[in-house]
Amino acid sequence: MGMIGGSIGMALRKRNLAKRVIGVGRNPFKLRRAKALGAIDEGYTRFDKGLRNAGIVIVATPVGLIPAMIRRALPHLKSGCIITDVGSVKGPLVKKVRKFLPGNIHFVGAHPVAGSENFGVENAKPDLFEGTNCILTPVTETNKKALRLIKEMWEKIGARVLLINPVQHDEFLAFTSHLPHIVAVSLVEVLRNFKKKYKNIKEFTGAGFRDTTRIASSSPVIWKDVCMANKEAILSAFKKFKSIASEIEKIISGEKWNTLLKILNRAKKERDSIKKRRI
Amino acid sequence: MGMIGGSIGMALRKRNLAKRVIGVGRNPFKLRRAKALGAIDEGYTRFDKGLRNAGIVIVATPVGLIPAMIRRALPHLKSGCIITDVGSVKGPLVKKVRKFLPGNIHFVGAHPVAGSENFGVENAKPDLFEGTNCILTPVTETNKKALRLIKEMWEKIGARVLLINPVQHDEFLAFTSHLPHIVAVSLVEVLRNFKKKYKNIKEFTGAGFRDTTRIASSSPVIWKDVCMANKEAILSAFKKFKSIASEIEKIISGEKWNTLLKILNRAKKERDSIKKRRI
Repeated sequence: MGMIGGSIGMALRKRNLAKRVIGVGRNPFKLRRAKALGAIDEGYTRFDKGLRNAGIVIVATPVGLIPAMIRRALPHLKSGCIITDVGSVKGPLVKKVRKFLPGNIHFVGAHPVAGSENFGVENAKPDLFEGTNCILTPVTETNKKALRLIKEMWEKIGARVLLINPVQHDEFLAFTSHLPHIVAVSLVEVLRNFKKKYKNIKEFTGAGFRDTTRIASSSPVIWKDVCMANKEAILSAFKKFKSIASEIEKIISGEKWNTLLKILNRAKKERDSIKKRRI
Repeated sequence: MGMIGGSIGMALRKRNLAKRVIGVGRNPFKLRRAKALGAIDEGYTRFDKGLRNAGIVIVATPVGLIPAMIRRALPHLKSGCIITDVGSVKGPLVKKVRKFLPGNIHFVGAHPVAGSENFGVENAKPDLFEGTNCILTPVTETNKKALRLIKEMWEKIGARVLLINPVQHDEFLAFTSHLPHIVAVSLVEVLRNFKKKYKNIKEFTGAGFRDTTRIASSSPVIWKDVCMANKEAILSAFKKFKSIASEIEKIISGEKWNTLLKILNRAKKERDSIKKRRI
């Protein structure tokens, strides 16, 4: 029961989309809090009690744990149950789940591109997904009815659904999400190193630095898992970033100001075209 | 009359801090708009008319033009007039102005760390500086009374004033502002290149990408000037960034997940400590 799981629960309950929303987790404390916050109707620490009769099971743990969680859940599920997840890396996960999923249980890989640097059920909110994208990553054997139901669920809680295959998902997200994350962390690390020399450097940060590095405040455990799960695509995205950044570096050191202006202009045009969906 | 100049005008007028706020610019159209928006009492395209009797002259052009603007303004200023600016690179500027400034005219270098990716007087607002930092960069011969007055002006329009020498200012800002800018532009360029292969990659961007790259939408001309004026410090900051980012790359490729987690944890702690002043 973290921010994403909690927000799904709140969104489903607010719109009366589920008969009951059951939270399952190790920590009874967090489950009580989730209930108090309106994210779940009931919470259980035991899989057998929590999963009995579930129509849809949404696994909302850090991505590295998802396959093991699904495996643990399987014995407690009724035939026809649909499992979905919220992991931000899909290739290896979908591959693993494919291997052990029995024929009478369905799996639909999902990645809501929502959230923020915050985490924990305290930060859950029912409108978290409104105006955001949710990427579903069906494969050939994905049950069509299950896919339709999960798609409908996300649309009803406000997301736009995009479909893409799991491997391409990971390649795309390496560029649009994982690379920016590493870059933001690197910028903060540069400042942290600089601080050893000049203690008050932090005072000189403004909105630019804050925005560029906001995601460095995200959950370390979640992001370590993302790097583990999408290592190759991240390294390849990072290589492209370094080559482009080094080009800009050369342009500055070579004082090619007209070329720099051209790049700043086309980057502005490109960035201007990426609009926030939520207004 | 852009966003910064316009916002200073609005802030001064709103608080009745100036008898009159006069806008001087090449473009009569922009001056009329500035007046209509309440940024100035009167606008002039001619220096002689606009600067006559000015007590304080605030130069709010891209940083590369500031010394030449001051030089052009000098013949029209009364004795005792205080010139200040809003340029985001201070070392070379302060050095240049020092050389030609007559004894009866004072100069106080200033850099309001405010603004956003927006620009133009349409984006000016009277509360732009509330809760932000304004860095003043006095040198030994800076007139104390002039410094006090400019400090007071910024404080009265809502900024916290920091004092630092111009060269250190540029070194600090290279890390806290100029480097993040180059990095944001590089991230957008990576996406732009990737788009040649996958047209719809933009659909897969979320809040993380948007925030990390927001400043790539800033004015290309302003930022070309910043790179020109602070070339050496920017290149040196960039070198440090590359070395730290490459270290993280090596940690990922070497699958040192515990080391990565340690870095993510300390970067989070560091970033969490940088709070937005404006609430």
